[in-house]
Amino acid sequence: MSSYPYPQLDRPKFIWNTRTEAKSDVKVHEWIETLGDGKPNWSDYDVTLLGVPLSKSSISSSSASENPDALRQAWKGFGTYNLDEDIDLAQLRIVDLGDVKQHVTNIAYTHEQITVAMTAMRTHHPHALPLVIGGDHSITAQLVKGWKQSHKDETIGILQLDTHFDLRDTATLGPANGTPIRQLLDEEVVKGKHVHNIGLHGFFNARELKYFADEKGIHYTTMKQARRKGIEATIQQALETLNGEVDTIYLTVDMDVLDITNGPGAPAATPGGMYTAELFDAVQLAGKHPKVKAMDIVCLDPRKDIGEMHVKAAVHTMLSFLTGYCQRG
Amino acid sequence: MSSYPYPQLDRPKFIWNTRTEAKSDVKVHEWIETLGDGKPNWSDYDVTLLGVPLSKSSISSSSASENPDALRQAWKGFGTYNLDEDIDLAQLRIVDLGDVKQHVTNIAYTHEQITVAMTAMRTHHPHALPLVIGGDHSITAQLVKGWKQSHKDETIGILQLDTHFDLRDTATLGPANGTPIRQLLDEEVVKGKHVHNIGLHGFFNARELKYFADEKGIHYTTMKQARRKGIEATIQQALETLNGEVDTIYLTVDMDVLDITNGPGAPAATPGGMYTAELFDAVQLAGKHPKVKAMDIVCLDPRKDIGEMHVKAAVHTMLSFLTGYCQRG
Amino acid sequence: MSSYPYPQLDRPKFIWNTRTEAKSDVKVHEWIETLGDGKPNWSDYDVTLLGVPLSKSSISSSSASENPDALRQAWKGFGTYNLDEDIDLAQLRIVDLGDVKQHVTNIAYTHEQITVAMTAMRTHHPHALPLVIGGDHSITAQLVKGWKQSHKDETIGILQLDTHFDLRDTATLGPANGTPIRQLLDEEVVKGKHVHNIGLHGFFNARELKYFADEKGIHYTTMKQARRKGIEATIQQALETLNGEVDTIYLTVDMDVLDITNGPGAPAATPGGMYTAELFDAVQLAGKHPKVKAMDIVCLDPRKDIGEMHVKAAVHTMLSFLTGYCQRG
Amino acid sequence: MSSYPYPQLDRPKFIWNTRTEAKSDVKVHEWIETLGDGKPNWSDYDVTLLGVPLSKSSISSSSASENPDALRQAWKGFGTYNLDEDIDLAQLRIVDLGDVKQHVTNIAYTHEQITVAMTAMRTHHPHALPLVIGGDHSITAQLVKGWKQSHKDETIGILQLDTHFDLRDTATLGPANGTPIRQLLDEEVVKGKHVHNIGLHGFFNARELKYFADEKGIHYTTMKQARRKGIEATIQQALETLNGEVDTIYLTVDMDVLDITNGPGAPAATPGGMYTAELFDAVQLAGKHPKVKAMDIVCLDPRKDIGEMHVKAAVHTMLSFLTGYCQRG
Amino acid sequence: MSSYPYPQLDRPKFIWNTRTEAKSDVKVHEWIETLGDGKPNWSDYDVTLLGVPLSKSSISSSSASENPDALRQAWKGFGTYNLDEDIDLAQLRIVDLGDVKQHVTNIAYTHEQITVAMTAMRTHHPHALPLVIGGDHSITAQLVKGWKQSHKDETIGILQLDTHFDLRDTATLGPANGTPIRQLLDEEVVKGKHVHNIGLHGFFNARELKYFADEKGIHYTTMKQARRKGIEATIQQALETLNGEVDTIYLTVDMDVLDITNGPGAPAATPGGMYTAELFDAVQLAGKHPKVKAMDIVCLDPRKDIGEMHVKAAVHTMLSFLTGYCQRG
Amino acid sequence: MSSYPYPQLDRPKFIWNTRTEAKSDVKVHEWIETLGDGKPNWSDYDVTLLGVPLSKSSISSSSASENPDALRQAWKGFGTYNLDEDIDLAQLRIVDLGDVKQHVTNIAYTHEQITVAMTAMRTHHPHALPLVIGGDHSITAQLVKGWKQSHKDETIGILQLDTHFDLRDTATLGPANGTPIRQLLDEEVVKGKHVHNIGLHGFFNARELKYFADEKGIHYTTMKQARRKGIEATIQQALETLNGEVDTIYLTVDMDVLDITNGPGAPAATPGGMYTAELFDAVQLAGKHPKVKAMDIVCLDPRKDIGEMHVKAAVHTMLSFLTGYCQRG
Repeated sequence: MSSYPYPQLDRPKFIWNTRTEAKSDVKVHEWIETLGDGKPNWSDYDVTLLGVPLSKSSISSSSASENPDALRQAWKGFGTYNLDEDIDLAQLRIVDLGDVKQHVTNIAYTHEQITVAMTAMRTHHPHALPLVIGGDHSITAQLVKGWKQSHKDETIGILQLDTHFDLRDTATLGPANGTPIRQLLDEEVVKGKHVHNIGLHGFFNARELKYFADEKGIHYTTMKQARRKGIEATIQQALETLNGEVDTIYLTVDMDVLDITNGPGAPAATPGGMYTAELFDAVQLAGKHPKVKAMDIVCLDPRKDIGEMHVKAAVHTMLSFLTGYCQRG
Repeated sequence: MSSYPYPQLDRPKFIWNTRTEAKSDVKVHEWIETLGDGKPNWSDYDVTLLGVPLSKSSISSSSASENPDALRQAWKGFGTYNLDEDIDLAQLRIVDLGDVKQHVTNIAYTHEQITVAMTAMRTHHPHALPLVIGGDHSITAQLVKGWKQSHKDETIGILQLDTHFDLRDTATLGPANGTPIRQLLDEEVVKGKHVHNIGLHGFFNARELKYFADEKGIHYTTMKQARRKGIEATIQQALETLNGEVDTIYLTVDMDVLDITNGPGAPAATPGGMYTAELFDAVQLAGKHPKVKAMDIVCLDPRKDIGEMHVKAAVHTMLSFLTGYCQRG
Repeated sequence: MSSYPYPQLDRPKFIWNTRTEAKSDVKVHEWIETLGDGKPNWSDYDVTLLGVPLSKSSISSSSASENPDALRQAWKGFGTYNLDEDIDLAQLRIVDLGDVKQHVTNIAYTHEQITVAMTAMRTHHPHALPLVIGGDHSITAQLVKGWKQSHKDETIGILQLDTHFDLRDTATLGPANGTPIRQLLDEEVVKGKHVHNIGLHGFFNARELKYFADEKGIHYTTMKQARRKGIEATIQQALETLNGEVDTIYLTVDMDVLDITNGPGAPAATPGGMYTAELFDAVQLAGKHPKVKAMDIVCLDPRKDIGEMHVKAAVHTMLSFLTGYCQRG
Repeated sequence: MSSYPYPQLDRPKFIWNTRTEAKSDVKVHEWIETLGDGKPNWSDYDVTLLGVPLSKSSISSSSASENPDALRQAWKGFGTYNLDEDIDLAQLRIVDLGDVKQHVTNIAYTHEQITVAMTAMRTHHPHALPLVIGGDHSITAQLVKGWKQSHKDETIGILQLDTHFDLRDTATLGPANGTPIRQLLDEEVVKGKHVHNIGLHGFFNARELKYFADEKGIHYTTMKQARRKGIEATIQQALETLNGEVDTIYLTVDMDVLDITNGPGAPAATPGGMYTAELFDAVQLAGKHPKVKAMDIVCLDPRKDIGEMHVKAAVHTMLSFLTGYCQRG
Repeated sequence: MSSYPYPQLDRPKFIWNTRTEAKSDVKVHEWIETLGDGKPNWSDYDVTLLGVPLSKSSISSSSASENPDALRQAWKGFGTYNLDEDIDLAQLRIVDLGDVKQHVTNIAYTHEQITVAMTAMRTHHPHALPLVIGGDHSITAQLVKGWKQSHKDETIGILQLDTHFDLRDTATLGPANGTPIRQLLDEEVVKGKHVHNIGLHGFFNARELKYFADEKGIHYTTMKQARRKGIEATIQQALETLNGEVDTIYLTVDMDVLDITNGPGAPAATPGGMYTAELFDAVQLAGKHPKVKAMDIVCLDPRKDIGEMHVKAAVHTMLSFLTGYCQRG
Repeated sequence: MSSYPYPQLDRPKFIWNTRTEAKSDVKVHEWIETLGDGKPNWSDYDVTLLGVPLSKSSISSSSASENPDALRQAWKGFGTYNLDEDIDLAQLRIVDLGDVKQHVTNIAYTHEQITVAMTAMRTHHPHALPLVIGGDHSITAQLVKGWKQSHKDETIGILQLDTHFDLRDTATLGPANGTPIRQLLDEEVVKGKHVHNIGLHGFFNARELKYFADEKGIHYTTMKQARRKGIEATIQQALETLNGEVDTIYLTVDMDVLDITNGPGAPAATPGGMYTAELFDAVQLAGKHPKVKAMDIVCLDPRKDIGEMHVKAAVHTMLSFLTGYCQRG
């Protein structure tokens, strides 16, 4: 009888993971660090990941709260090496800070926590780019407010990829997933003219919201317009416009911007949307821009997903953005 | 060419519903009334139905908020005639009052609304039995409090069919779906000795909650004990005990009491639970008892349901209870 | 305790629909009228909607009979405002007439009813465009025959978006979902040269049907040809050709024209088909043409759909067509 | 290099089926014969299997037409040896005659074919028991009429396992899946007192149908009654009663008699029904009775099935019946 | 702005797990230890858990290899406290050793590893009961052989809960999931008369295997026989018989023993099987017996599971067994 | 009573298949022959189909072993006539040889069988193109080795459509689905410079494998590069390059090259991949080239498929390739 299993038993855990056998094949979960006792200098990180499992603030029923863990599970199937660009993300140091505290029944308390978490990231990891995984779109208002609190003199612009304006009124809804941009305008954290929304389409925005957007000077490009012009050209132009006007560009990706065939897991998934190939190009381009200093990915309900295609698209979106980040001059 | 469709076109709507062709086959949705302008005398109803589409107060992600409408849709497939008992529910007058107002982000406000809705039902329909469709179990605390406000001198007992004690602490959770019985005890709306919980089982209650239940004098019968004794005998004994002690018995059915094979749609569906045949017998028996004056059905997430079996079980539960109600002496 | 719920209880129904709170956000189901007693003047409508829940005439098993109700349910998630075109469909008056009478076992009777329903629409709503939701493709023969009966002197052309010719022989099948165009040719309601079929592809038409189509002078453009030329250019050319030859263009959209990834719910869903973005452009263009005077949407089995993507695509198809209708000069 | 595959290539087909390697393990599809050119004497068979893929006659949308092939596929996973009873079904000679011709759009024609197929089986296989796989319940009326035509002087009794009476009126529905027993009474093929229906339950029969059944002298035992008395005792008593009154007992099993948890594939699946263990006992007992001379299994829609559990239950039902058949004295 | 989130950021990871907030509610994954550097004395454990993610040795396609991780995920939803028995499993020390090494293409090598893993457990954890989670049933032969190698003088008995005999010949299959008991007999590790198989049923065993079992003196009780006698009485008698004959009883639970409605995830799921309530009673009883010294749970394919019901049943099976273990005199 | 069913009963089997009624509509399964006793001259075939139901050699759990039968089932829904190209595949003689023998537990034995099967095809059907349906990608190494054994002096090139390099090391994995190209290089069956891999993308290949590919001179074009250049141009250039260098081009299509939205059934399905329209064009072009002499289709797990879209895409891929084959000059 062979004696080969003994060495494994002497090791703390003798799981043999077939996929990591080839050491060259570093998976994303092996690359992303987690916080531990002996880790002294937090400021070394290039990117801080934060989960925000909040979807109680969604207008329609959503389990987007399960998205941070769904992404953590799914990225085990992705490597760090981007063959198309010949870039290995492993050159970045990235840490997963875990999830923001959630209160079971007090949404306002949770919202406040999210803002504090952003300010804490800016304090403890001032050189790291915050990459936040929602949760629903209500978290964006909290995160941008947190950024503003930490960088009071900065002018903030928003690059938004979305099917919706998210300009609905908090008077009736409270701070919900349909209101974040409105909140930022109302609270004067961001100016309308510094918001660029790309990918809106179809029959999913009320006419009044369009009038409101016009009134506030929000820039928006519908999906049809963006496709006609080219997604990359559209993104490029938004970045260039913002570059001359703001200090920080906050990138927010509402995963419902994807066409329902590419992103079935969004509570508001619709036909007529963006394809993943377009989205990956868009965020990679944004990742390259030196003023894009924070990103969030929101409104993906893994329970509604089909064949994990939306969740995998979200992981790919995050990695495409980080590929761009590696390509910054 | 035949002229037969003309009469239909002269009628406001020419849908021809194959299922209602045989007039004897009255479906539940044809029997349940809805409120309308010309209906003068509300106090005629025997039963008032109320939907409470709230599940933001659930500990784990739940779409039980979609349950009221799921039941309304499913009961179109049920008739009013109970062949087993030769009873036609159509002898009762029942009205669907619609749903309690929900606030998108303010759970406390919604909870308050639920209590007010119960007091309103007691005011406007004093002779009608309120039958409430949740939503999650947090609504039970609000409903019983509403009953108490309308009937201040009454002693209220609870007959609970549930996998769980629902005695968790609001200090950490707020008023959530794991806390309703605890809230009623803490706020002295109900006494521990007037709570009878039947169907608890397995590994789904913390030991401390059992000690707390013992300390408070709560009566509970595990699923194994109940099955050994007979479900009907167990229910009967609980009713008889309560009959001598309280004025009103409030029946609350947490649909997670069902075995996961019978009720896959509960967020906390588990093996080891009750079968529908047992549940239908249990609630019919409760329905017969004159002191059972209100009922709720909670914690069913139709999105998690499989082949509509849980939703149909909930409709049958409601109809079995009303069968018992028709059998009251 | 606040008194806010009382006003709602005084109203007939106190459902609080979160989505309609913002009055600007008119949903499609709020816009589409239904017939009621007090509505005096039917001829005001611009569009009459008619459901035809017939799929017993399908060659393979189909539940396309459930499609009219599936669409009615799904369009609750769509608004009336088309952001891409800055057009609000609410400018049109549209009425849902309900469903054509179905006989459970006599398909011929039902087919006859469908024809009568079209003639009735032409009589009672002479200024309204009939928009019919199937059901399977056998209904198209009945509907076009109904149009012909009401407009005996008109020459009718067909603009068909379809994977199939639908030229199979009724001798063996009877009037089925594979035969409607053949029936119209055989019964001399439409001439072959006035049929333009766009989107056929792959291995889903018998060679003999192609020969038959050639013999009859039917115009057809395969999916590959249409994509190479541009869908819009292809549609435009068909419309222009028909414009010079016929009085009325009847638009029939077999939802199986969509690629299986975009339209999984068609009983005959196949790879190699059209994408929704192409279909929406195609029908909007057709909607603009003044000679397009009727439309149907057929062969979508909601039970076979995945993540509601096909049903939502059908709603969007209908709304895109109506967008075009609003753009008529 | 080994030469082992050559012998296989010399054989016409070199599929190597892992499951049939152990020759003792005869699977059902290897046991059931099909008709072929060289088979001279049809009258050797003990059982003739016939598929009737008709479900266009169903009141609600049904793909029970796919059931015959679904069962043929599923029984590949069953062996012929019944371990519980130590009986090998391989002692019977059974032939699958294929499916009755279906017309795509002429249900009456198909119905006629079914009757002729039964008379043909009685003519060509006079010693074989017909075992028919539907299709919906409308086929039972046709099959029993076929039997009657072949055995004009026989009195026929019906042993029906069903959730429904199937006594609805053909005047409105035509010969549908809700009418077969009514048709047999109306056409005086069977007398009401010779119908024994076991397993009815819940809210799925109109009161008037119950009165009609009473008026006609139909025997029925609800599911609750049958379970209280014991399924086997209930079946036994029905068989004994019929034994003294009729020449032939026709067994019809509507698969919707099963509880929705055991039989999710029935278009009308409901809670409160029979369990498979009860059904298998029931049909085995019926199979033993010498006057049970034909059987059908109907109303199972494999597309609605979950995890193949209903289809496998139907196969087991058929094999349990044949086990009883082997046990006839 | 409140400062409350800071303490969390000072901790290594600031995930706030809602379910563990109430400290009394110890979940199974919090109780089960994993091996780590600083843990000195392995022999303290009462139970060693081992995963064996092997299902390449299955006759039909199986993903039972994913079962160990599926159970690890699912038991996060179970607590340690058994309310029915008032026993807290937390009194046991249990360690998860991880998974046995798997070779991607060399099944024989993996099989050898499994045997070595069992001998290693016996060496390093001589006082701990091995509880092994498969994988398919081929692992049982390897595990029992490992036990035998470590305890050469012991007589081993098998208590098997299974739909199948697992007595097929390795000559054609090699050591597969249909052969483990045959291998143990052939290799004289276990005697036929020391095998007790309970729960066999239906049409899923070849006649020859029954003859082989008889010849070898294997004890078997079909599901029908066991249910008639009572599951607990059946198990009790098997334990008592074995108690007088062997030193060690190895309990192997093939999860396909469950009825397909209770255990849809078994590759060979069938109707006619055991219910979970019966299985939980059976294993708890076995757990109480002092000679039951090892257990495995096999043949559950989580990908085939429906609504996680089978996976949860497996966790409950394991916990019910351990409840019995706590009850040993 | 009509006598029409009698003629059918006189025929061996009286199934009436609605789809074949129109004789012009030849379905793929009616066209593909199977081997039978009386078929004398095997060398007449143009194409030999072979199934290889092996997926035990997959790194992650896969049921690609079920793919050959899934395709055989699915192609019953395809005709032989390609409307886009006006080509009828029925001009080719094609035979399905069945499946290669599989051993349940000895993968090496099965691998050897696959090689022998290819040599047998070359011997018995020297003029036929082998078209092999996997199974996983490990079979490609075996098939190419079989070709090499039969054509020792030929230089073989590989045209690979794949998301992955398949260059992993057999030292750790054995011959698995991640190693086939590496095996062919290591065993000097194929030279690196004669491998053209098109469609690689994203984060699914380790950096070291890219270096290894570069070192070996493998040609590869990522999905982005291919789409930019045009798929057809990319394929054309690879074919032309190979044309000058090799005698035989072996086309291997890993179905995971498709984007997850188009091919959800691949165990490693990912976003960022090819669309079916691109794949169909690619293989048709390859089919036209006279040096493409063998093809395989691998790594499709039908159990993971959604709405049969991947399986239908695989059938269409095969038929598109054969369309090209018919177009060879």
